[in-house]
Amino acid sequence: MVDVPNTPLLDTVRTPQDLRALKPTQLRQLADELRLETISAVGTTGGHLGSGLGVVELTTAIHYVFNTPDDRLIWDVGHQCYPHKILTGRRDRIRTLRQGGGLSGFTKRSESEYDPFGAAHSSTSISAALGFAIANKIAGRPGKAIAVIGDGSMSAGMAYEAMNNAEQAGNRLVVILNDNDMSIAPPVGGLSAYLSRIVSSRGFLGLRETLKKVARRLPRPLHSAARKTDEFARGMTMGGTLFEELGFYYVGPVDGHNLDHLIPVLENIRDAEEGPILLHVVTQKGKGYAPAEASADKYHGVQKFDVITGTQAKAPPGPPSYTNVFAQALTAEGERDDRICAITAAMPAGTGLDKFQARFPARTFDVGIAEQHAVTFAAGLAAQGMRPFCAIYSTFLQRAYDQVVHDVAIQNLPVRFAIDRAGLVGADGATHAGSFDVTYLATLPNMVVMAAADEAELVHMTHTAALYDDGPIALRYPRGSGVGVPLPSTPERLEIGKGRVVREGKKVAILSLGTRLEEALKAAEQLEAKGLSTTVADLRFAKPLDEALIRRLLTTHEVAVTLEEGAIGGLGAHVLTYASDEGLIDAGLKLRTMRLPDVFQDQDKPEKQYDEAGLNAPQIVDTVLKALRWNEGVEETRKPA
Amino acid sequence: MVDVPNTPLLDTVRTPQDLRALKPTQLRQLADELRLETISAVGTTGGHLGSGLGVVELTTAIHYVFNTPDDRLIWDVGHQCYPHKILTGRRDRIRTLRQGGGLSGFTKRSESEYDPFGAAHSSTSISAALGFAIANKIAGRPGKAIAVIGDGSMSAGMAYEAMNNAEQAGNRLVVILNDNDMSIAPPVGGLSAYLSRIVSSRGFLGLRETLKKVARRLPRPLHSAARKTDEFARGMTMGGTLFEELGFYYVGPVDGHNLDHLIPVLENIRDAEEGPILLHVVTQKGKGYAPAEASADKYHGVQKFDVITGTQAKAPPGPPSYTNVFAQALTAEGERDDRICAITAAMPAGTGLDKFQARFPARTFDVGIAEQHAVTFAAGLAAQGMRPFCAIYSTFLQRAYDQVVHDVAIQNLPVRFAIDRAGLVGADGATHAGSFDVTYLATLPNMVVMAAADEAELVHMTHTAALYDDGPIALRYPRGSGVGVPLPSTPERLEIGKGRVVREGKKVAILSLGTRLEEALKAAEQLEAKGLSTTVADLRFAKPLDEALIRRLLTTHEVAVTLEEGAIGGLGAHVLTYASDEGLIDAGLKLRTMRLPDVFQDQDKPEKQYDEAGLNAPQIVDTVLKALRWNEGVEETRKPA
Repeated sequence: MVDVPNTPLLDTVRTPQDLRALKPTQLRQLADELRLETISAVGTTGGHLGSGLGVVELTTAIHYVFNTPDDRLIWDVGHQCYPHKILTGRRDRIRTLRQGGGLSGFTKRSESEYDPFGAAHSSTSISAALGFAIANKIAGRPGKAIAVIGDGSMSAGMAYEAMNNAEQAGNRLVVILNDNDMSIAPPVGGLSAYLSRIVSSRGFLGLRETLKKVARRLPRPLHSAARKTDEFARGMTMGGTLFEELGFYYVGPVDGHNLDHLIPVLENIRDAEEGPILLHVVTQKGKGYAPAEASADKYHGVQKFDVITGTQAKAPPGPPSYTNVFAQALTAEGERDDRICAITAAMPAGTGLDKFQARFPARTFDVGIAEQHAVTFAAGLAAQGMRPFCAIYSTFLQRAYDQVVHDVAIQNLPVRFAIDRAGLVGADGATHAGSFDVTYLATLPNMVVMAAADEAELVHMTHTAALYDDGPIALRYPRGSGVGVPLPSTPERLEIGKGRVVREGKKVAILSLGTRLEEALKAAEQLEAKGLSTTVADLRFAKPLDEALIRRLLTTHEVAVTLEEGAIGGLGAHVLTYASDEGLIDAGLKLRTMRLPDVFQDQDKPEKQYDEAGLNAPQIVDTVLKALRWNEGVEETRKPA
Repeated sequence: MVDVPNTPLLDTVRTPQDLRALKPTQLRQLADELRLETISAVGTTGGHLGSGLGVVELTTAIHYVFNTPDDRLIWDVGHQCYPHKILTGRRDRIRTLRQGGGLSGFTKRSESEYDPFGAAHSSTSISAALGFAIANKIAGRPGKAIAVIGDGSMSAGMAYEAMNNAEQAGNRLVVILNDNDMSIAPPVGGLSAYLSRIVSSRGFLGLRETLKKVARRLPRPLHSAARKTDEFARGMTMGGTLFEELGFYYVGPVDGHNLDHLIPVLENIRDAEEGPILLHVVTQKGKGYAPAEASADKYHGVQKFDVITGTQAKAPPGPPSYTNVFAQALTAEGERDDRICAITAAMPAGTGLDKFQARFPARTFDVGIAEQHAVTFAAGLAAQGMRPFCAIYSTFLQRAYDQVVHDVAIQNLPVRFAIDRAGLVGADGATHAGSFDVTYLATLPNMVVMAAADEAELVHMTHTAALYDDGPIALRYPRGSGVGVPLPSTPERLEIGKGRVVREGKKVAILSLGTRLEEALKAAEQLEAKGLSTTVADLRFAKPLDEALIRRLLTTHEVAVTLEEGAIGGLGAHVLTYASDEGLIDAGLKLRTMRLPDVFQDQDKPEKQYDEAGLNAPQIVDTVLKALRWNEGVEETRKPA
């Protein structure tokens, strides 16, 4: 039973065209209904709520003023795009958000022409918008590009790189800085402090001042004359010099919930002859929904919840999450060794470092959305004798790949990478999948790459990494809960490059890396039931490989299968390469590699995603049987009639 | 015959300790001698000259004032570190710069305790310095960290990320902005314009003003009281508000060649109670050497040259460089199709895009040192109908890996990656080697990865990429000259995922990707001479693989070898994975993968590096013979006595 709110005006708006036919006086009601619908939808599906509620008025105003989709609207990250989806022809599917087969929780090009650029990782919007703007400029087409970017996203280097290049777009580019003083975690860094100073020292601009400020529709010569004297005054009085110095016209701050201000300001910006313009809008995350406004993280990401009370559905009780196990293990290491320190890029809760921070605030560093800096900062810490853990999700570590190569691996510095969200991640879909880290890390000289098979292994690996001073080391582990094994009271220091045999058999060998081990053991049971004695090994290390163990398993079993939660180029490729280097394949080797398929998989429940990927027990069994049939010449087609 | 200049004072300085024993009045002479020695050394070896000449006084002053190596001095990029090497115990080896077995052309931890952090890629210094500073802070150790970073390097996002996090380091961090208004190419972007405005509008600070400005040794309470009123004045009068707003004390601009100013300013900064401080120093690239000062690129990177005349040794005549062939081919595509556009990250000459730019200025974009922005900007251009070529060296594309994954590959946008400097690169060493791109790109769904075997192939591949609209496509090619094949008058559109057989044989198959093809053909000759009929295929594509061709070669030859200029996880891994997926290895397959070894190789001549890597013809022959011996049971140890 879905409790759909009463939204008579919103019901008449199927596209922004309908919206633009409304009178300005109707927009307040529309926004209110849009807010109710957003709350209702997320109450049903779970997802990102606070961000969307913060931009209900902004979304309404942008589509009202600009000519979307010809004017290109690009939402940074995309957490805030649910109201936008409701207004752009997707309301009928809004209660499928983040479900298998449903709407993406982010903007997505394949979903709608109103999503000109997909998002999910932060801080890409200005670069993309510049691309749209410049393409229009070259082609002599009309059409602006509007990037809406949060203050947290502004801390990332690529946003700065884009701003540094924005001037060439002129008035085709509009950047709307959505300042809610709250990314996922409280904001950090100089830029955030700077924005706060602007807002606190100036308050909001009145409408008259604002309009005056953006009234740039003067005839050109007059305007040019006016500009110079104006320039000094603007920077000095408005405090937006940082953006002005990078080439923007800074406008703001403006109350992002006041449609009577937003609409005329946006109209002026739309018609401005000069640019690019940066509009500084101040909003409140979770706006208009009391439980969200009262929450510390403003209901950033939520489970399904009761709309009246705000009570979120609780996850069923069960084993602790890998994140929590890591946090606890790292804190124990921190107690033991005061050189252990921890770095997160704006994800203290997501990585569990908030718990480490509570115990060791002076040794915890949240650098903001700044993965590149996080890694090289960690390298500097390591070079000066600290033992840093750089805790970054697999998918976000991609953003610091060069720093991993150049500053850590080449220098062989002991930076420890704690890689959460490795493998498929469920509702966040392809953009957040941690599919490539084993491949892109294990190809690097000096790098050690571990994957935890369960939460007890994660404790051992955290300990092992903490003690490993010979160079960089990575430990990867998935999103979600452990498998329920007991946690060790004393962590074990693992031998680098040594796997373990979990179950000894004779005919089939499954070489597993990471948490597919559970499926491998299930598959072994099923194979055993068919009379196929099966060994299961947890290799623990993708690099260095346990060559002795692999040689033994490959040479004493009839068929071997590698199994990993990663794309091609990872464990399977390394095992095959070893087998080839050593000539083990020369005389015939039934070796198969099971890995993520060569597609970007859409969101779904993780177990379904792994089923789609072909990495669950039945598919392991199938792979083994197929390999054996080849061997035994009993393929279906060859069977006698 | 090395013509060593007369340097009586410099001869007495073996380490910064010796330097610090000099009187301030002697420093001018020392700097002059240091300049002469730098010119002489680079005249002998070739290398980076202009950058070093620009910081002779700064290098002298920093080591004079700060307590190196306990104070940690970190040179960004490292092009400018030759004078530093001369002053820090490495003068006796300075004429081995960039030679095999010699000094690195960059800072390098293993070379000296005075190099606390290696460099080569730009913009890492502030992050690293923060790491050193914070580690000292945590440990309660004295010692500052000084980052020297050029204005060009400031355009990279990671420099901004670091600045945004700098405040926590307090006075332990000093950033020296070496503003020579010239990275490798003329600077671009808002930041550069901003710095120029500061310098042009203010001129240099007089010594008295400067000292007053940095005299922060006031007792704390007094200082704190003074700070607020001071703050406004500083920002307004000095124009350094951008840095101030990110949390720095901005000091400058100061003439970086005037030791009488530099020394007292640095002393004041050293003793300041507050921080972090950003010192804006203005220098002239190539300073003090007339031929360099007069040159457009200020002798950024030079061949050996005659010190008196400045005449550089000419490269022997020969085939055109891959870079030039690409530039010419791309320009031809630009003539054909006005949607073709080109993006470089501060390397217009290095990538050849200066030539494209000369013809199509409106379709060429130099975004500064900003690879992340470059890629997502290209994605935006592609999404709006352009056909962008993103020309980035293999090693630098690592810096945009997430953008390649998230903004290009997931969205399947037709961005064309022109990847120069793929494979080993000679004198620039491990930091610049393009070893990983095939691995990190070919693991991505939707990605097409090509490698040119010679300059004619590069023309075809540029054309193929220009016409390929179905998704992202990469073409990689090495540093240096082509092999001398004639360039095609009309480029050919290659079929995606199809290789070619260059030479047909029967017993041995060499599956080559990229310019090792030449060595493969040499090896084939040698094998043929031993009676081993050899096929050589140029696979052209690492992804998608030419499965039909590979199947045929693997199943009809006795031994097969893959050959590539890349690390593990690339072509060899993909061929093995295919062979395993298809069960081709089940019945025995003598397949070997020849690839870069699992080490970061030091600088040397490329042919020596490839010899060390084991990827030259003799080693190919050796690999084949070894594989065949296994087959024929004629291993040395098994031979009858």
